[in-house]
Amino acid sequence: MSELYGACIIGQSGGPTSVINASAYGVIRTALDSKYITKVYGAAHGIKGVLDDDLYDMGAEAAYELELLLHTPSSALGSCRYKLKDSSVDDTDYKRILEIFKKYDVRYFFYNGGNDSMDTCNKISKYMQSVGYECRIMGVPKTIDNDLFGTDHCPGFASAAKYVATSCMELYHDSRVYDKNMICVVEIMGRHAGWLAASSAVAAYMGQGPDLVYVPEVDFDMEKFLADVERIYKESGECFVAVSEGIHDSTGKLIAEYGAENAPVDAFGHKQLGGLASTLVNILKERLGDVKMRGIELSLLQRCAAHCASETDVKESFLAGKSAVDFAVSGVTDKMVGFKRTTDENGNYKCEIALMELTDVANTEKKLPREWINEDGNGINKQYIDYIMPLIQGAPEMVFENGLPRFAKLKKVHPKQA
Amino acid sequence: MSELYGACIIGQSGGPTSVINASAYGVIRTALDSKYITKVYGAAHGIKGVLDDDLYDMGAEAAYELELLLHTPSSALGSCRYKLKDSSVDDTDYKRILEIFKKYDVRYFFYNGGNDSMDTCNKISKYMQSVGYECRIMGVPKTIDNDLFGTDHCPGFASAAKYVATSCMELYHDSRVYDKNMICVVEIMGRHAGWLAASSAVAAYMGQGPDLVYVPEVDFDMEKFLADVERIYKESGECFVAVSEGIHDSTGKLIAEYGAENAPVDAFGHKQLGGLASTLVNILKERLGDVKMRGIELSLLQRCAAHCASETDVKESFLAGKSAVDFAVSGVTDKMVGFKRTTDENGNYKCEIALMELTDVANTEKKLPREWINEDGNGINKQYIDYIMPLIQGAPEMVFENGLPRFAKLKKVHPKQA
Repeated sequence: MSELYGACIIGQSGGPTSVINASAYGVIRTALDSKYITKVYGAAHGIKGVLDDDLYDMGAEAAYELELLLHTPSSALGSCRYKLKDSSVDDTDYKRILEIFKKYDVRYFFYNGGNDSMDTCNKISKYMQSVGYECRIMGVPKTIDNDLFGTDHCPGFASAAKYVATSCMELYHDSRVYDKNMICVVEIMGRHAGWLAASSAVAAYMGQGPDLVYVPEVDFDMEKFLADVERIYKESGECFVAVSEGIHDSTGKLIAEYGAENAPVDAFGHKQLGGLASTLVNILKERLGDVKMRGIELSLLQRCAAHCASETDVKESFLAGKSAVDFAVSGVTDKMVGFKRTTDENGNYKCEIALMELTDVANTEKKLPREWINEDGNGINKQYIDYIMPLIQGAPEMVFENGLPRFAKLKKVHPKQA
Repeated sequence: MSELYGACIIGQSGGPTSVINASAYGVIRTALDSKYITKVYGAAHGIKGVLDDDLYDMGAEAAYELELLLHTPSSALGSCRYKLKDSSVDDTDYKRILEIFKKYDVRYFFYNGGNDSMDTCNKISKYMQSVGYECRIMGVPKTIDNDLFGTDHCPGFASAAKYVATSCMELYHDSRVYDKNMICVVEIMGRHAGWLAASSAVAAYMGQGPDLVYVPEVDFDMEKFLADVERIYKESGECFVAVSEGIHDSTGKLIAEYGAENAPVDAFGHKQLGGLASTLVNILKERLGDVKMRGIELSLLQRCAAHCASETDVKESFLAGKSAVDFAVSGVTDKMVGFKRTTDENGNYKCEIALMELTDVANTEKKLPREWINEDGNGINKQYIDYIMPLIQGAPEMVFENGLPRFAKLKKVHPKQA
């Protein structure tokens, strides 16, 4: 092991999750406790905070508040969607990052995000190597989409999945309460991958979930969809449908855009784009006429419902952050911390840390395997249930205040300038 | 006490809540354990189950499954929205109800619902008295709207409020994650009363909630609203708004209908009616231009999120059902069980059962007091926070299976016919 003393920066990037702060806490706590890491800085809004010299001194935070990050949703340090140019094209940002790294003697950089964030890590790492600045750079994954390559699953996915499955179960009960039942269409996040929408099938596995599930991995056929819903509705007097926001037809056109075709325009001349759920409900109404229907978009709720997180996910997310620091101080750099699924001596699920190449993660998207989707493309197979079951175990061990979750309140103190 | 032996029927009516089954369980468990009540029947879909002779034998259910009703959302027996005619106009339904009551020797009738259900109770009670059929009839309240007269609060309200406040806190964190923040408009149920939308102010009281709250008790002024949002957005770079679905202008016109004025029509010639949240977002976009905005409708989720119920509400809902039976067997009839707020010897919140006149409850709607809303009509005062705080305490003590809540599965056995 080569010993490297210096400060670290932790940044968060991309869409937040319920547990991204658990990973950040894993980094921050472990870094604060490390003898090699002299200072722990949080970057305000990811890499933008580095570029803007907008850092927080994490050592100035109360330990109790930091620990509350385990169950605080969204990105406590702030996030961004900033894409670094290739340094061969324009190295302005890289020079600035190097300047800030030198200013604060930053020798460790941890970036907590999705595949774009791994791309950022990778580019910074390559640049620092090219200019001979010693700095260990580690990616800590997060995404509710679960589409990161290499890792068995992603921190953040299971908590969103648990919220989706729980909400679908509850909606199932609600939507069947009257003697005249309804058709319910629930829209779930996931532009390119159906991992999250598929979690609604866990509710169905419990006998209380969607009749039909559509994911972007299979081309969506509107006629077949209408026939599916009509058949189930005629048989049982109700139909519950779960859809990924990213479902598309065989030409690649998003179904969410079908509603825009004839361009309804509001009083101000704006196209009124409903979401996918309301688009499908409108099309179903045309076919089925006077049937009670409801389109429900889980919207941002599904990615920030910390109160319904998976405690397994919370613990694994923390572990991902912690391991990133442990590996970095031991000499590892230029890697993403990922998960490998194994079993313990009793054959039970066990999650081990594995290191992934940043380049691989940055440029590959992991889809739901076709064989985990049923042949008709309107349901999810048992392999998926077996895959997700250990990930959604455990209710969050939260602190409450005034009957509501007590989320972390950070002071966000800027470091003293020399 | 006049001793009355016979069967009982429990029915559920109106929109469901997260805890309406806790009240039903209070009735069923207590009735099954009572020496006066010989049989306990559940009516399928409320009074319609009585009219259709569609009853379930609750004694045939497993005790464990019945206990799971405490945390099972929606109406387990099924609900209806059936309004009985006045018996002086048409007594067909009443004759049929009497026939069924005689057939099963029903001497106790418990109806679990909102003000329409209390009206149903009242009408049946009066009719049974008029024909000299001895039967004790009790109303057990439920509503997420909290608009029932006489009772300090309604079973079901606090759980919905807890979900709304929790979700608003989580959305607050999510909506502020980027350096360029967003305007977020959250639509909350409540057509005539703002009790539930006001619960978003608990999140604000925690420093993590809406900047603006609008309820139907105050006429909505669009110009003032736009100015409010613009001012806050310009000051802080973000704005979080919570609105009751029933907000209306000074002419009584619903704001949700503003979007329909110029009638955007979809490909099929249907008016595309967005919800209130999307209507307000569209109007805000016209004023503020290129600002990131999101309209979020909490939809059915807020009334069925049993996983986020208030355990205080669960326990009080159970108590309401139990007390209805206890009072009935002791000779009380023609009343609704309500709550009176008192304090214990240490000055802490205590909830006592009080009996209300069915007629009063059936015909009166309880609004949010004007003085609990701020002078500008865009926020909620401290009195409301003090009122709701004890009601939302306690996390639900649920049973989990496969990482998801284990909801009751009733066999729904029809009674053996003679």
